[in-house]
Amino acid sequence: MPRFALKIEYDGRPFAGWQAQADQPSVQQAVEEALARLDPGFANGARIAAAGRTDAGVHATGQVAHADLQRDWDGFRLSEALNFHLKPAPVAILQAAPVADDFHARFSALERRYLFRLVARRAPLTHGRGRVWQVQNPLDARKMRAAAAFLIGQHDFTTFRSSICQAKSPVKTLDEITIEEIAIPHGREYRFSLRARSFLHNQVRSIVGTLERVGAGGWQPERVREALQACDRAACGPVCPPQGLYLTGVGYPEDPFTE
Amino acid sequence: MPRFALKIEYDGRPFAGWQAQADQPSVQQAVEEALARLDPGFANGARIAAAGRTDAGVHATGQVAHADLQRDWDGFRLSEALNFHLKPAPVAILQAAPVADDFHARFSALERRYLFRLVARRAPLTHGRGRVWQVQNPLDARKMRAAAAFLIGQHDFTTFRSSICQAKSPVKTLDEITIEEIAIPHGREYRFSLRARSFLHNQVRSIVGTLERVGAGGWQPERVREALQACDRAACGPVCPPQGLYLTGVGYPEDPFTE
Repeated sequence: MPRFALKIEYDGRPFAGWQAQADQPSVQQAVEEALARLDPGFANGARIAAAGRTDAGVHATGQVAHADLQRDWDGFRLSEALNFHLKPAPVAILQAAPVADDFHARFSALERRYLFRLVARRAPLTHGRGRVWQVQNPLDARKMRAAAAFLIGQHDFTTFRSSICQAKSPVKTLDEITIEEIAIPHGREYRFSLRARSFLHNQVRSIVGTLERVGAGGWQPERVREALQACDRAACGPVCPPQGLYLTGVGYPEDPFTE
Repeated sequence: MPRFALKIEYDGRPFAGWQAQADQPSVQQAVEEALARLDPGFANGARIAAAGRTDAGVHATGQVAHADLQRDWDGFRLSEALNFHLKPAPVAILQAAPVADDFHARFSALERRYLFRLVARRAPLTHGRGRVWQVQNPLDARKMRAAAAFLIGQHDFTTFRSSICQAKSPVKTLDEITIEEIAIPHGREYRFSLRARSFLHNQVRSIVGTLERVGAGGWQPERVREALQACDRAACGPVCPPQGLYLTGVGYPEDPFTE
């Protein structure tokens, strides 16, 4: 059976998350229902696997999943057919490409990249609603960067891990956190870019929520180092809401989507 | 009665346009209802006037209106109070400022600025839905710029004017059309910026819809000059949809919102 990798974009607002759940709309179910319109295997309950199981309200611009189909497809035609059947759900197949049988969207991934968008503005958001996290007062980006530096590298991230996280080990290597500050009309946007081989459940939102406390002046940067070293969930700052989070890309030994 | 200028941002999707209409949600009504919560004049039916009466689905990041209130207000407190009462409508007061009694949001305006966002991408939009106009194939920006140049200056814009336009004269002076081309993942965005003292009804959407025909190769740039010279609505290209259009700013002899 030919295997295909799918690069998927979605607006997370109407979904209970990536993962299929009984009685709740999920991105996985939306894609599987589109596949079922063109492949008998999916009509009979075949499933797809994705690189990142994003939570309710979390968005993606570069999620990757793989699917085994019963016949061969041209990648472009497959993406067009799936997009036709996905309407009107806010889910789009950006690219589809044939991959080797041993390619696995989740287990072959070497890197996940996330973006978190935080807007500091006094007036309520209108256009950005559900797409960024809003706070009211500007943040100190330099202090947030100083605090973020303590988190780079291999650490026990128990402090920044949801209590329901199912990963076997809390030890992860965080390769990058950059914080870009952008002037926007009547406010400021802070874009947090994080990159790691894999993340613990709620790790990005736990880190960004904690860094926001530093940026707002409630925490000194050093407190983030102490929180990390405590290896204690209670030492974490507030977990920030999901709507600013985007899964932007997944890295593999070879990019399946080279055009 | 003290007069206040309001700088207003809104997501046009849920509204039948700026202007209050019986039985249809409008931005004007949303703002007047918020004003009615804090001012007896508006509780008794006072009205506001705006610089641009945007159509259904059209957005604003810099609409300006003025309101006469029965007591004096600090501008910042007025914006905060209005934003509190506007919730959950996607309308925000970005600034409120006291102005002279002879300031009129519509008649004092010397300049209106509009942005039109057009995205060319094969896959359906997810995050940009309702916020940009999507076409599927890339456009030729140089040809669109060549065509746009014919429209700059003072002309009879009958060709680019809605048949229901109520302006006394079809002669307007278009001061600027710039077209910015931006590479985005899996596509291209074209940002049309237009500036004039005032616009005819549907003028921006008639112009952008016509320029898109040029960018797609269906029209040569010179055909836009001929269409303009025809002074005939039938010579216009297709009017593009409203969701890519933003009223971004209004200019006055003195900026009422200097902070």
